[in-house]
Amino acid sequence: MAKLFDIEPVVSQLGIADLGRATIGQAMQLAERLEVRTGIPFIRMDQGVPGLEACAIGIEAEKAALDRGVAAIYPPPEGIPEVKTAASDFIKAFLDSDISPAGCIPVCGSAEGSFGAFAAAVRIDPAKDTILFIDPGFPVQKEQLDILKINYITFDIYGFRGEKLRPKLEEYLSEKKIAAIVYSNPNNPTWACLEEAELEIIGELATRHGAIVIEDLAYLGMDFRRQGLGTPGVPPYQVTIAHYTARYILLLSASKIFSYAGQRAGIVAVSDALFPQIGNQLIHNILYMITSGVAHSVQHGLAAMLRAAVDGRIDFVETTREYARRAREMKRLFLQNGFHIVYDRDATESVGDGFFFTIGYKKLSSSQLMSALFAHGISAIPLSATGSRQEGVRACSARLSTPEQFALLEERLEAFNTDRI
Amino acid sequence: MAKLFDIEPVVSQLGIADLGRATIGQAMQLAERLEVRTGIPFIRMDQGVPGLEACAIGIEAEKAALDRGVAAIYPPPEGIPEVKTAASDFIKAFLDSDISPAGCIPVCGSAEGSFGAFAAAVRIDPAKDTILFIDPGFPVQKEQLDILKINYITFDIYGFRGEKLRPKLEEYLSEKKIAAIVYSNPNNPTWACLEEAELEIIGELATRHGAIVIEDLAYLGMDFRRQGLGTPGVPPYQVTIAHYTARYILLLSASKIFSYAGQRAGIVAVSDALFPQIGNQLIHNILYMITSGVAHSVQHGLAAMLRAAVDGRIDFVETTREYARRAREMKRLFLQNGFHIVYDRDATESVGDGFFFTIGYKKLSSSQLMSALFAHGISAIPLSATGSRQEGVRACSARLSTPEQFALLEERLEAFNTDRI
Repeated sequence: MAKLFDIEPVVSQLGIADLGRATIGQAMQLAERLEVRTGIPFIRMDQGVPGLEACAIGIEAEKAALDRGVAAIYPPPEGIPEVKTAASDFIKAFLDSDISPAGCIPVCGSAEGSFGAFAAAVRIDPAKDTILFIDPGFPVQKEQLDILKINYITFDIYGFRGEKLRPKLEEYLSEKKIAAIVYSNPNNPTWACLEEAELEIIGELATRHGAIVIEDLAYLGMDFRRQGLGTPGVPPYQVTIAHYTARYILLLSASKIFSYAGQRAGIVAVSDALFPQIGNQLIHNILYMITSGVAHSVQHGLAAMLRAAVDGRIDFVETTREYARRAREMKRLFLQNGFHIVYDRDATESVGDGFFFTIGYKKLSSSQLMSALFAHGISAIPLSATGSRQEGVRACSARLSTPEQFALLEERLEAFNTDRI
Repeated sequence: MAKLFDIEPVVSQLGIADLGRATIGQAMQLAERLEVRTGIPFIRMDQGVPGLEACAIGIEAEKAALDRGVAAIYPPPEGIPEVKTAASDFIKAFLDSDISPAGCIPVCGSAEGSFGAFAAAVRIDPAKDTILFIDPGFPVQKEQLDILKINYITFDIYGFRGEKLRPKLEEYLSEKKIAAIVYSNPNNPTWACLEEAELEIIGELATRHGAIVIEDLAYLGMDFRRQGLGTPGVPPYQVTIAHYTARYILLLSASKIFSYAGQRAGIVAVSDALFPQIGNQLIHNILYMITSGVAHSVQHGLAAMLRAAVDGRIDFVETTREYARRAREMKRLFLQNGFHIVYDRDATESVGDGFFFTIGYKKLSSSQLMSALFAHGISAIPLSATGSRQEGVRACSARLSTPEQFALLEERLEAFNTDRI
């Protein structure tokens, strides 16, 4: 079968010099323009968009708040009491960790949370001016540091899982310039999960070297290999750095756990030990200066969803388990057509199924693989964009839901594999 | 009559070294804590909050959008088509200026608009790394530049109105380091309005020296000395830099014109001549990196309100004219008790009545005046916080609505004046 799409003209039109280094935005635009040009739909695995309906409790709470007239009144810079208390209770219920409501601050998506956290982290000690990423990670965070003119360094955790993480981290931290260590767990893009022993290493070294830890929990509770992470107040809990160091910041996002990406709702939660150092700065001198608070109705919606989860009225983990089902089926199709999972193992077990996975094909470089996938009507983003040093792409499982889509993916992968043999 | 409030303990508690240099946040906290401590309400003239009900058309449009399921879907980084087109039409209808929908980008309040505009402005030419403020102005914008690590310089326009503005501006622009000139019109905090001849000077010099102009129109249409600024498509129009230079950015805010401060909705509008230089950067590399777009329902609400104004279904100028009535009465009470208006004239006529005004009392410094006003149960912010070199405070007219409040203000001002004689 011939390739479905002649991608070269559009690649040049978009000014993409190397598909292996394309940004998420460029990959999205490429897929969209090819679809418009040809009228043939892509299998879209590029952007990480929720593929489920938004949590109805949030929607109803927003509408009720709008009816009460909140639109006229500036939101308090620190957030409304309801969302602060609900976030604190949520962290207790699902992480078994204590953060006072004062430290739980609503943000316009966890993008604004990390942006603010970075700006605050480097204000603590002028000597500590650098952010350390345990990569792969979310590319947006590095562009945030470019805007803020803050230095960062990064390493690919591939090959440094388990006890090997200790000397690697020590190498960077011993210079005493690291203000904060950043990672996501479960990980975007690999869906790898840091294990308790690894978090213990990170916490211990952060404490010893005076670095804070910024833990991005956008996919909180979604290690679907476990059961019961969505049951409030009883083990097992989402593993977290909160159990291994005192000075940390958690980033919570409503985008995926409540399928609420459209309303830009998140929480930046500053630990009680860190709050006296940066809390006021973060709220009044940073976040307030950027957006002057979060839309009032959105805060009420977020508060209602967090509260419903704490009360056990919704189980956001069971709802999002659908992503694991989709990923499992997609991975099966990829594997049966010559692909492999790039980041395939955690320290002690196989990587789970969820919102993202990483794939490579034989000896193809990221660049070659991106070209070949797009030519066959499948979009993804290159691993290089995420700070990975491995060859391959990130795939998002969220948008494939119908049997027809899976059949189409299978057909295109078979063509892909046949073309390459 | 003795002073109502013993302010010293709370001033020290808040760590305010000099009330003459207090921030808006500190002034607000001082008033709030004194109210709680004593149970006696303040006459609140500090923060600029809308004192009217939110525009119902926005609320209904948000609720309808939420019902359609927009909460699940990431908003497009450049904004939904409806809000882009409505903003473009709004600018045509009330400013008689043409900006393509592509250049009209929704933001989380015009705070995010100026933050993004500053970051984009200094990316155009590495040699132009400084922002020039025609002060007094909105203190938040300078703190934004601190976060972004961008240089700024500022001068107080007091004494440089009319043709005197030309040599003053030339002095700064001739160094060729100015990336952007910033001012608000009508002005926060003085309610002064730049006149056509002054805008012509700014535009001409900006063009000659390659600076862009960032015009903050938070109070668009509210020069209440004019009639008919709220009638779409017919003169008179809001005066604007758009008529005097090609490379400019307008900041629109729903907070005051639609009394919609709670939802953080604004537009940053980039002129057609400037858009090819910074449009993509601003949308994809700056604003997207900070909040990943604006809450989907809020965009629909904003689009509906802009469209209703363009269609003449609401007259936001007549609605907000209420602020002029309140300001006129307040100013009368201040003047009759020994106060004077600090910024009392535009280039050719007396300053109008609106959302803000500036007052001084005899030879009192800003610091002395702040202390005396707070001691008498009246809150305000010091002019020094706004980049003014004059002694006095900014007063906001929005929160005083009832006859009882005006009577209370009168009583307190009489006590103030009696105490000082």
